[in-house]
Amino acid sequence: MSADSIKMEGSVCPVPLQHEQKIVVGHGSGGRMTARLIAQRFLPAFDNEALAKGDDAGVVELAEAGRIAVSTDAHIVVPLFFPGGDIGSLAVCGTVNDLAMVGAQPRWLTASFILEEGLAMTSLEAVIASMQAAAREAGVTIIAGDTKVAEHGKVDGMFISTAGVGWVPPGRCISGAGAQPGDVVLLSGTLGDHGIAVLAARGDLEFEVELESDIAPLNSMVEAILAAASGVHVLRDPTRGGLATTLNEIAFQSGVTIRLKENELPLRPAVSAACEMLGFDPLYVANEGKLTAIVAPEDAEQALAAMQHSPYGSDACVIGQVEEGPAQVVMETVIGGTRIVDVLAGEMLPRIC
Amino acid sequence: MSADSIKMEGSVCPVPLQHEQKIVVGHGSGGRMTARLIAQRFLPAFDNEALAKGDDAGVVELAEAGRIAVSTDAHIVVPLFFPGGDIGSLAVCGTVNDLAMVGAQPRWLTASFILEEGLAMTSLEAVIASMQAAAREAGVTIIAGDTKVAEHGKVDGMFISTAGVGWVPPGRCISGAGAQPGDVVLLSGTLGDHGIAVLAARGDLEFEVELESDIAPLNSMVEAILAAASGVHVLRDPTRGGLATTLNEIAFQSGVTIRLKENELPLRPAVSAACEMLGFDPLYVANEGKLTAIVAPEDAEQALAAMQHSPYGSDACVIGQVEEGPAQVVMETVIGGTRIVDVLAGEMLPRIC
Repeated sequence: MSADSIKMEGSVCPVPLQHEQKIVVGHGSGGRMTARLIAQRFLPAFDNEALAKGDDAGVVELAEAGRIAVSTDAHIVVPLFFPGGDIGSLAVCGTVNDLAMVGAQPRWLTASFILEEGLAMTSLEAVIASMQAAAREAGVTIIAGDTKVAEHGKVDGMFISTAGVGWVPPGRCISGAGAQPGDVVLLSGTLGDHGIAVLAARGDLEFEVELESDIAPLNSMVEAILAAASGVHVLRDPTRGGLATTLNEIAFQSGVTIRLKENELPLRPAVSAACEMLGFDPLYVANEGKLTAIVAPEDAEQALAAMQHSPYGSDACVIGQVEEGPAQVVMETVIGGTRIVDVLAGEMLPRIC
Repeated sequence: MSADSIKMEGSVCPVPLQHEQKIVVGHGSGGRMTARLIAQRFLPAFDNEALAKGDDAGVVELAEAGRIAVSTDAHIVVPLFFPGGDIGSLAVCGTVNDLAMVGAQPRWLTASFILEEGLAMTSLEAVIASMQAAAREAGVTIIAGDTKVAEHGKVDGMFISTAGVGWVPPGRCISGAGAQPGDVVLLSGTLGDHGIAVLAARGDLEFEVELESDIAPLNSMVEAILAAASGVHVLRDPTRGGLATTLNEIAFQSGVTIRLKENELPLRPAVSAACEMLGFDPLYVANEGKLTAIVAPEDAEQALAAMQHSPYGSDACVIGQVEEGPAQVVMETVIGGTRIVDVLAGEMLPRIC
């Protein structure tokens, strides 16, 4: 054991520096080992005043009265690391995006970790670094956290639950219930990249796929869309369940028919090929850096341009429209027919997020 | 399968009523089975407008600008149910109490569930009911949630992460860094009830213990203390790591010595006996419904009276005082000596919260 100690700004007791290789049950005890884990691994990365104070909750200032948005996600993805991201970037972006989809500006995040005894410390460090990078890009700070450790075999590697708080500027009214007949349906890019990339990283495929997850924080794209267009009625990110499930939720919340055109749906050749070989429909495969926007027809062009000029929206396109009719999603197929696109039934690609 | 369907207020697609006995992987798919789980189990219990809207984040109104507190906890307690509570009441009270300990009035909670495939639906229902009862008592609403399912054996029953947002009224300045020489240290009741009750429920003890966990929301006690006394410097709930670890954190944050009197520490006979037989020190055993308050000497009497008149504070008492000196906790023992009370080292009673 090293005899050094780090002095944390008032936040925890001085703790001897140690270079532990693996997570042990004592790291979740709430005592000295937990304090050391926090002081050595979390605080330097998530560096901010509210967290460093070391109190039971992070306290932050809201300059204005008004609406706040609050959201949470649990993340259990397998494997922890995959091309284009890892459970850490997924956890931060997932919550950032959920806040952005109600028109909120994400501000503060919390992160609670459930670690498996025996987890390599290097894995935890890599995840923490990735969370911090994603948080920095999204402009959010991680102001509270918690760490628990379960015995080897009682948890699968590492689970992370994030929650987030965002500020909803006055006048914004974005909800799944807002779609109106005549509205245009936009999609910010290709479908299914995340789901297929994670599946490939598991080694479950019989063939090679060159593909990265699309994990990305979408809050800057949302701000760009809202600055460019006043008639933005719905924003939603098609994660678990895919675009099909997301659009069905909107159709039911708004009481409208959503009509898609199959030949407008953007797909990477790798995703298209993988889905064909596996018998998957890319409409049901998860995305983690895409959004669908439903906007008034007179605003569609500006909203689309704003998406296309955003870092993660270069492939944005119009994929359909909203019509009066029963609450459902229909698709004009490539061969000229029309079919109903249902909600995902049963399971598909478990442990994808 | 039943052909009935429930119509949820716009929040999710209509879903056929089903009476599933166990959680399956499809309940975490994000599709129809997830929607059904939410519609049938979560929404009726956590009934509130923000959640029922079914958007990606709950949106709520803050009437005033100012400070908010944000906190999170992961809960992995074994067993899920024990005398005096369960993982659900633990999850709600844990986060409510963390918010209250910085002087915040808890308002909104989020809950993310990681469920094991095969979990009995009755267990989930019991936990949800218990969360709602605790939330109602604490006056908080659960406005956002998430549900994931991991395959049988990849998670141990059920984990719940909660996060919370509270409002900090102007003028309140409560932090672990606030203890001052001369302050009086109060404790709201008996030590170690939660830890020993959970341990007994695991069947790990060779003897019978008649004991309930002390799980309780402490926010109304905090309000009563703050209404009665202006000089409240520190509030903290001694959970994992016990009172010893909590007071050490405060001693280091504030740069003071905290002196305890062993014969003032309130202990139930059952806890005292169990600790003696197991070789545990009750100072390190977790509590889930107790707080320590460090207050200016002129406010000690009022603060103590307020605690004693609160529903969970009838055994409240003075346990020590704050002195100038090195950042440490010392205890005058029953036999007249003085010993240093250190932070919990290593592990003790894992999976207690």
